[in-house]
Amino acid sequence: MNDIKWSKGEKKIARAAFEKAYKRECADIIKKLRAKAKEIKEPDGIWGLHDFLTEKREEIDEKYDYRYSRLILVFAMLVKGGWLDFNDLKGLAENKIERIESLLSFWNE
Amino acid sequence: MNDIKWSKGEKKIARAAFEKAYKRECADIIKKLRAKAKEIKEPDGIWGLHDFLTEKREEIDEKYDYRYSRLILVFAMLVKGGWLDFNDLKGLAENKIERIESLLSFWNE
Repeated sequence: MNDIKWSKGEKKIARAAFEKAYKRECADIIKKLRAKAKEIKEPDGIWGLHDFLTEKREEIDEKYDYRYSRLILVFAMLVKGGWLDFNDLKGLAENKIERIESLLSFWNE
Repeated sequence: MNDIKWSKGEKKIARAAFEKAYKRECADIIKKLRAKAKEIKEPDGIWGLHDFLTEKREEIDEKYDYRYSRLILVFAMLVKGGWLDFNDLKGLAENKIERIESLLSFWNE
């Protein structure tokens, strides 16, 4: 996907959408970790929470890759995960939206 | 410290003290992680909490080494850290208590 050009305006929209998704997903992790922290009764619960955070950190680090060559795929994953919707991507060129939709319909098959 | 022999009764006391310290220290970690979880406002706070737990896990894994050849050193560290006191070690032979005290006074010099 290296052939896709991003205009200055699109870069701004992309950056905002990317950050919005990151904040939403992190807010969800915070909510989950607070609930888990409350429920811990035994030492093993600590290590369970640590494992949960290790997994989330790896997942987030891998997913939130802001390279323009990767963004279409990243946005498709974020829409699929429920962290973005197409309204957040309003203003991107039609061919980009189509590529995202095409990935989503491919995954849903 | 491989020359130290542990009687059956001492092994029972040692195991109970070891587990008591582990539970106390883990209860302290649970308390701290709950307080930290409550205070998280930004995504970075998640990774800060993850770092805290990674550090604690490594520390605990290294410290709680139940080999009889290591126990004198382990108990000295646990007394020094405030996770055990000499009452918890009551019933161990005098020479073991002396070795623990001697390590503590060496560290406090």
